[in-house]
Amino acid sequence: MNQSMIRYVLGGVLKIEAIFLVLPWLVAMIYHENVAVYYVAVASLCGLFGLLMTYKRPKSYVFYLKEGCLTTALSWILLSLFGAMPFFASGEIPNYGDALFETISGFTTTGASILENVEALTHASLFWRSFTHWIGGMGVLVFLLAVIPMSGGGSMNLMRAESPGPSVGKLVPKIKTTARILYMIYFCMTLAEFLLLFFSGMRAFDAITLSFGTAGTGGFGVLADSVASYTYVQKWIITVFMILFGVNFNFYYYMIFRQFKKGFSMEEVRWYIIIILVAIGIIFFDIRHMYGGTFEGLTDAAFQVGSIITTTGFSTVDFDLWPGLSRTILVLLMFIGACAGSTGGGMKVSRGIIAVRTIKKEMLSYIHPKSVKKIKYEDKPVEHDVLRSLNVYIITYLFIFWISVLLISLNEHDLVTNFTAVAATFNNIGPGLSLVGPARNFAFFSMPAKCLLMLDMLAGRLELFPMLILFHPHIWKEFFTKRDDGE
Amino acid sequence: MNQSMIRYVLGGVLKIEAIFLVLPWLVAMIYHENVAVYYVAVASLCGLFGLLMTYKRPKSYVFYLKEGCLTTALSWILLSLFGAMPFFASGEIPNYGDALFETISGFTTTGASILENVEALTHASLFWRSFTHWIGGMGVLVFLLAVIPMSGGGSMNLMRAESPGPSVGKLVPKIKTTARILYMIYFCMTLAEFLLLFFSGMRAFDAITLSFGTAGTGGFGVLADSVASYTYVQKWIITVFMILFGVNFNFYYYMIFRQFKKGFSMEEVRWYIIIILVAIGIIFFDIRHMYGGTFEGLTDAAFQVGSIITTTGFSTVDFDLWPGLSRTILVLLMFIGACAGSTGGGMKVSRGIIAVRTIKKEMLSYIHPKSVKKIKYEDKPVEHDVLRSLNVYIITYLFIFWISVLLISLNEHDLVTNFTAVAATFNNIGPGLSLVGPARNFAFFSMPAKCLLMLDMLAGRLELFPMLILFHPHIWKEFFTKRDDGE
Repeated sequence: MNQSMIRYVLGGVLKIEAIFLVLPWLVAMIYHENVAVYYVAVASLCGLFGLLMTYKRPKSYVFYLKEGCLTTALSWILLSLFGAMPFFASGEIPNYGDALFETISGFTTTGASILENVEALTHASLFWRSFTHWIGGMGVLVFLLAVIPMSGGGSMNLMRAESPGPSVGKLVPKIKTTARILYMIYFCMTLAEFLLLFFSGMRAFDAITLSFGTAGTGGFGVLADSVASYTYVQKWIITVFMILFGVNFNFYYYMIFRQFKKGFSMEEVRWYIIIILVAIGIIFFDIRHMYGGTFEGLTDAAFQVGSIITTTGFSTVDFDLWPGLSRTILVLLMFIGACAGSTGGGMKVSRGIIAVRTIKKEMLSYIHPKSVKKIKYEDKPVEHDVLRSLNVYIITYLFIFWISVLLISLNEHDLVTNFTAVAATFNNIGPGLSLVGPARNFAFFSMPAKCLLMLDMLAGRLELFPMLILFHPHIWKEFFTKRDDGE
Repeated sequence: MNQSMIRYVLGGVLKIEAIFLVLPWLVAMIYHENVAVYYVAVASLCGLFGLLMTYKRPKSYVFYLKEGCLTTALSWILLSLFGAMPFFASGEIPNYGDALFETISGFTTTGASILENVEALTHASLFWRSFTHWIGGMGVLVFLLAVIPMSGGGSMNLMRAESPGPSVGKLVPKIKTTARILYMIYFCMTLAEFLLLFFSGMRAFDAITLSFGTAGTGGFGVLADSVASYTYVQKWIITVFMILFGVNFNFYYYMIFRQFKKGFSMEEVRWYIIIILVAIGIIFFDIRHMYGGTFEGLTDAAFQVGSIITTTGFSTVDFDLWPGLSRTILVLLMFIGACAGSTGGGMKVSRGIIAVRTIKKEMLSYIHPKSVKKIKYEDKPVEHDVLRSLNVYIITYLFIFWISVLLISLNEHDLVTNFTAVAATFNNIGPGLSLVGPARNFAFFSMPAKCLLMLDMLAGRLELFPMLILFHPHIWKEFFTKRDDGE
């Protein structure tokens, strides 16, 4: 295994985090907050470690899938371990485990919080908390790919391990260019949302943090009631942007480069929009008796649907009080998730489409056993290997899900709490139902339960296997015995 | 499509039902109950239809998988339509839809009831209700295979469609002999349980109906409190037999023919026993504070675990009042289910074993991409086709499950009710939690919801596809246009 290269990449990640940590420090300076010192300290620490780890260049840049997965998993853990320090050092989150939960929840764009009172946090920490969403949404390694040089298939192995969805498409032949294009789209869309929110009359601080939360499909807000107290216009702006950030980014690429036909023929985007519209329709019909004004009900229905399917997790209302049908639809949306290649989590719409086609094909094979029609997706036959890994993904997903529900139930809460707490963290959503409903938080869980949920958040964000192989003894055996780094 | 053969087999099924209906008539005679006349009437009707449908022998006995599936699905529906008549005609269940629910629940060995007061039923109807479990447990088509002549691969296609589990093993080269051996084992074990219960001091009527319910892993009892009011010895007899009927029947075959080594090397049986013991242990530990006497807690824990994993659904206690951990474990057991090739439902232990090995293999492929180790099960490599159909099964299972939960939630009950009502019917268990807990029943659902649950019960019992293809237009197009029956 190429240990030197792993070290080198991890060092790069820490250097980037050091730079990112400068931003909350600036915020602290603007608001004259004392936490500034902690952000400087942690940024320096990150920078120091980063410099030490990247001081010696690796002799070999060869990077296989196992190294890609391991590096991805470790870099997300490392990122979170350092990212949690300011919260803890400043005493704003007095328990380091809780601070780590909050940070992992941030980076994985989950948005599940252990904070009883969000508004008690300093501006700097609120900013950092939301900024982690933005960093995690597109992925820090993709960022790394955009800025540092790397040769061979190694970068592809990194990108594959970090990017959500069943298959990673290189938009252009060079990974580096792809990564840059993605980050440019991401940055511009975030900026657009910020400007719209700002000009709709929102405080600049709220506008920027909410834009981060929307862009990463994270869900941390800066007010105790999430997004409930903003104006209708602002709620609709956020709704639209949540849905936009759940779209496969390839769509925007096609739009920018005027490949309209390619863009509009994307089945996943089409189904994603259809599912959203149908869900809004049914929920609106189901909750209309709770609302005097029709428009108010529609706003809440659209906001919650957009928030849950994109796995953002903002809320304008305590949907745990909604009727059973609406709650069930929201739980279903939690599993469907956004498009592949977006910043959203969940199982992804494309997986759903292919799964339904698999069922259809199987039914047909009972009727016409000799037919050999291949499953098609986006007008192309789906390769055997993609199908196989999709199946394995679903089985593994279920397995981790049920094991997590089983373990979390050791805390002896009700079934809906256990089930939706796992669903909300594993799918990187944030709020669930019952005790983890949108009006509540995750503080009451025991520390072992919180650790489990942290692992679920990471496993969900990294699409299972990069995280899962950390638990396979072989990878560590190789790591500690085999050296293949040319040194 | 060979319509004549389908007609002929369905006629055979009806003739068998006519004979089976004689038994509740005898019970009615013994207890001098007026319902006797209804059982005679329905038996005659079944016999008449059966004779008419089998009057003309089909010219061709050729039978493909599509015909096998279609015949299986239709025969189970037909069986239920006629089987529900005595309940309805006698006025004991005044609504035919409810009577059909109860009958389908019986034949599919689910044991979910719409009866508010079981004890109000006549002995004849209680007997028929439990007897449907026994018939459905082994499968009426397997019975048919054991008694009527059929040539070619046709019988295999019937057996494959009706038997639970990922792969149907012919114990001996001739299907007919296999079917007979299975029914002999089934009959002898039922008799053994009856005798043990009877000699432990149970009323003969209770002993025979409970034995039917255990053998088919059904769960209809004859008392309002299910099995709660019997003695400890009787509870333990039932516990042991529930678990025995959840074992793959191949095991018994090996034991009878002294192939001990083959029998004891069956991984599925081993894991099945391990899961049961672990679940009993944890639940016992979890509920011990609710019980003064240790033995009492152990009895209830063992009984409920045996009842749920084998998908029988008897209860000695309202486990909806148990702590969260125990309830969660029971819900998990609902999905695992019994062994393949047993009378139990659920996803089957063997599928679970292969699924876990698939995950392990995938993890390894991340670490050693070039390794080409095949997944092994029972010391043999698992064929690609078995894996593929297992994956499709799981995806289809999930799909039907979630669609059902969504549709059932139109009734606006709580999430746990919706979720466990579907889990309990689809896995052929019987009781769920919350509003469908063991102390309650399914009467309160609307008729559309009941219809959905009926379909779920049938789909669960027939392992999805034979039932699912009824909804595919192609099968009906073929049925009504293509004749391939040599006439």
